[in-house]
Amino acid sequence: MFNTIGIITKPNDPSSDSKAAELGELLKQKGVAVKCGKQASEQVDLIIVVGGDGSLLDTARTFVDKKIPILGINLGRLGFLADVPAAKMQAIITEVLNGDFIKESRNLLSCQIEENGKLLGQYLALNDAVVHRAEALKMIEFDLLIDDKFVSNQRADGLIITTPTGSTAYALSSGGPIMHPGIDGIGIVSICPHTMSHRPLLVPGGCEIVVHIKEADDGATVNFDGQTSVSIAAGQQIRLLQHQSSIQLLHPKNYDYFEIIRSKLHWGAKL
Amino acid sequence: MFNTIGIITKPNDPSSDSKAAELGELLKQKGVAVKCGKQASEQVDLIIVVGGDGSLLDTARTFVDKKIPILGINLGRLGFLADVPAAKMQAIITEVLNGDFIKESRNLLSCQIEENGKLLGQYLALNDAVVHRAEALKMIEFDLLIDDKFVSNQRADGLIITTPTGSTAYALSSGGPIMHPGIDGIGIVSICPHTMSHRPLLVPGGCEIVVHIKEADDGATVNFDGQTSVSIAAGQQIRLLQHQSSIQLLHPKNYDYFEIIRSKLHWGAKL
Amino acid sequence: MFNTIGIITKPNDPSSDSKAAELGELLKQKGVAVKCGKQASEQVDLIIVVGGDGSLLDTARTFVDKKIPILGINLGRLGFLADVPAAKMQAIITEVLNGDFIKESRNLLSCQIEENGKLLGQYLALNDAVVHRAEALKMIEFDLLIDDKFVSNQRADGLIITTPTGSTAYALSSGGPIMHPGIDGIGIVSICPHTMSHRPLLVPGGCEIVVHIKEADDGATVNFDGQTSVSIAAGQQIRLLQHQSSIQLLHPKNYDYFEIIRSKLHWGAKL
Amino acid sequence: MFNTIGIITKPNDPSSDSKAAELGELLKQKGVAVKCGKQASEQVDLIIVVGGDGSLLDTARTFVDKKIPILGINLGRLGFLADVPAAKMQAIITEVLNGDFIKESRNLLSCQIEENGKLLGQYLALNDAVVHRAEALKMIEFDLLIDDKFVSNQRADGLIITTPTGSTAYALSSGGPIMHPGIDGIGIVSICPHTMSHRPLLVPGGCEIVVHIKEADDGATVNFDGQTSVSIAAGQQIRLLQHQSSIQLLHPKNYDYFEIIRSKLHWGAKL
Repeated sequence: MFNTIGIITKPNDPSSDSKAAELGELLKQKGVAVKCGKQASEQVDLIIVVGGDGSLLDTARTFVDKKIPILGINLGRLGFLADVPAAKMQAIITEVLNGDFIKESRNLLSCQIEENGKLLGQYLALNDAVVHRAEALKMIEFDLLIDDKFVSNQRADGLIITTPTGSTAYALSSGGPIMHPGIDGIGIVSICPHTMSHRPLLVPGGCEIVVHIKEADDGATVNFDGQTSVSIAAGQQIRLLQHQSSIQLLHPKNYDYFEIIRSKLHWGAKL
Repeated sequence: MFNTIGIITKPNDPSSDSKAAELGELLKQKGVAVKCGKQASEQVDLIIVVGGDGSLLDTARTFVDKKIPILGINLGRLGFLADVPAAKMQAIITEVLNGDFIKESRNLLSCQIEENGKLLGQYLALNDAVVHRAEALKMIEFDLLIDDKFVSNQRADGLIITTPTGSTAYALSSGGPIMHPGIDGIGIVSICPHTMSHRPLLVPGGCEIVVHIKEADDGATVNFDGQTSVSIAAGQQIRLLQHQSSIQLLHPKNYDYFEIIRSKLHWGAKL
Repeated sequence: MFNTIGIITKPNDPSSDSKAAELGELLKQKGVAVKCGKQASEQVDLIIVVGGDGSLLDTARTFVDKKIPILGINLGRLGFLADVPAAKMQAIITEVLNGDFIKESRNLLSCQIEENGKLLGQYLALNDAVVHRAEALKMIEFDLLIDDKFVSNQRADGLIITTPTGSTAYALSSGGPIMHPGIDGIGIVSICPHTMSHRPLLVPGGCEIVVHIKEADDGATVNFDGQTSVSIAAGQQIRLLQHQSSIQLLHPKNYDYFEIIRSKLHWGAKL
Repeated sequence: MFNTIGIITKPNDPSSDSKAAELGELLKQKGVAVKCGKQASEQVDLIIVVGGDGSLLDTARTFVDKKIPILGINLGRLGFLADVPAAKMQAIITEVLNGDFIKESRNLLSCQIEENGKLLGQYLALNDAVVHRAEALKMIEFDLLIDDKFVSNQRADGLIITTPTGSTAYALSSGGPIMHPGIDGIGIVSICPHTMSHRPLLVPGGCEIVVHIKEADDGATVNFDGQTSVSIAAGQQIRLLQHQSSIQLLHPKNYDYFEIIRSKLHWGAKL
């Protein structure tokens, strides 16, 4: 099933390196060819990320168009995406090599920054694209359009456009709903909006979203997955679409989305 | 296109009756056969409801399995569903008869109340099913399951299960997001939950949702579209699925979902 | 300091009775005269409630005008008000008898139901007064006035008027803020308001609040501390003031309000 | 009553200058001595600000310790603080000179930045002090202490400490309650907190609040009234107290706090 596996580590993290070495040994014992690092990972049947959700987000954006499935080994506390605990790596990887796993598709956002019809840059996001004022003293004003239709003019600290995967990340802190990964939709959540009546908005995955910056006195930024940041100015706009390829995440066979949610949000905890 | 049209009025509402008479005249002038009342409406090509969103909700639940499209004439202020203003009836109906309209599909919820595997009752909802404590002094405790998987145990005033259509109704007052009607999903929103970390949850339209009542000292009720109410007791459960048929709503040709949202939520209004 | 102490138990609760008996023994050993039950408790220097927050709320409303301090022994999990754990009763009561305690004042609400200037009933609340629709299918409409000035007209499921003490009870589930008990203020929190722009409102403790019921198709109720409920109809109003006497709560000497909040709200728990 | 009045204009705003000139003429006609600009305003009986809420905030921080009452003429749309519309200046100023006005006291926050017991800077705020991450990609971690007691450890975008006056400014966008200016209290509101169970917190005006920065990878800033900004780093803390002097705001005689709230929040607007 998986004849060649690529291993990607978290940069500058010795615990990731040593866990990856251990993983490499394990795979070779099982007769699997191993390639290491981003370059090497292009011609493989599976990519294993040894790190956390952050490393997996980065890997997903890099490899989404290669259509190679991804699995994440988590070195810290339970991740939403990297859900193989380091302590159980050997047992779970053995199961995965035997075909005992759950495969799940996750959509990404394809985002382009534009000005007067000219493309300024193109970016991907597995979690979210966040338009935000650059300086703490000012807010930004923008128009939101969906499928070329005007939706609203807002003054706010910022705006989050999120996939279902990102709905449990920054969007949740801003009052957004939890979106099951199986939802074919995109979430739009304002950050500290000045109008009291704005509410999180969910649109179908096929929609095209445009955020046109009207005013940004001290500039604004767009962040992708909280990892890449670009400047954006008044007059420019960001256009967002569901990316044409999705990633395939592998989970342990007993994967339970709601158990992760319960555990991360402490839902057992009563007042 | 529409050879026979059924007209449904709002019960005990003379203004609905007189507008319906006017509509009947108009249709006959255009050579359309007219049937009136719920019984008569079964063998028609289109149903026109003369009333408001409430009348349309009722009609939708009654006729969803007949697969007859529905159009609503609104006697009061703008509705989310019944969006032909009475004052523009003549012009818009003429356009509709000429084929100038937008057709849109809306999903319903199919809900059954059960106890120990026995079916106690079956109901439909175009907006929402609301499980609520019966008396103001007590809360209820319930388990939420999705596709047979335990999601959470909650103590709350109640729980709303909403279609995208219902997302701008009661669910919005309880903190739920706005769900575009094109979303294939179901929203689950707690009403005054006792645990601080609960958030609105969106699941794919194909999910089966079970709300199992664990405790309801003074009883609980389940409401469908705010129009039909049944009692439910501890030990019983409500099972909810997307209904197998959807309704086809007809809108005027210049229908704009976001314009209705803007107008109803006063999104132009700045602090 | 405390020569005679009254003991109040939770009705129909054998564990409260046996703990109260144990407490009675302890007090007598320390040379304190003991009176039991509500009647007996009138001429005492301190009232000890053996139960939980609910029993303490009831006792506070009953005895507030006698100006007798109150201490609560908690038989279940930690309370906001009854904060002497049963397991530590002996040690803490001994300290209290030695004068080692913290005394804290808590305000109550004085509420009267009126119709056309006629007083229909008078009630007290240590936590909150909750105006609520009586039936789950309907909402209520009311005017809110503060110091005879019109504040707002609302359509909602209900309205909570809360003391700082009640701010961590029902008001918190409805989106209200946490009010430190030292605040001289009253909180006003709407329950599922139909207008998107309503926000919890805090007014000075000296304000007079009037909630005038405009519409309540299926009736409405007013609840006091979630323990007493009265019917209220359209045309009637509830007038609320800070009660002229306050209660004196005794706490263990290491009492820390924020530790209780942290523990009850699970503030240590990170996403 | 007011023999000498100082006039303060909005910098670089010709419409403010011309309105101020008109005001100066009016005052002189009424026999009042006029001083212009910040320097000149120190020995006056009243300061009139010609601008908006922003100009008034700035003036209030500058003159609070001089105990000179302040009145604001608003050149734009209705302000929360500067509530004399330019169009009605002549009539209302005449009334004010005749003693027909409402005088209202507003508290400020006194804030000092500290490191290892060393004072780094001292600032005032009439609205709020906002601790915020400096860069959009990172959050900050801080401890909140009240009267030397640990309250919570938070990871968030930031934290707002607000007076009642500031409760309708940035704090409202972040989910804080509306605090009537008569409340003797301070509001504490988290911005996009990572823990789901944080809620706005209200403490008595006499409390001392310390926000100790534990982590701020890309730095953090503290803003005062959205007008002054200083950098703050991990290891430093901000200490906040109600300032010992308050300002006296003069309002037109028909001033109604709730009418301003209603108008600014569009409370008449129904769903």
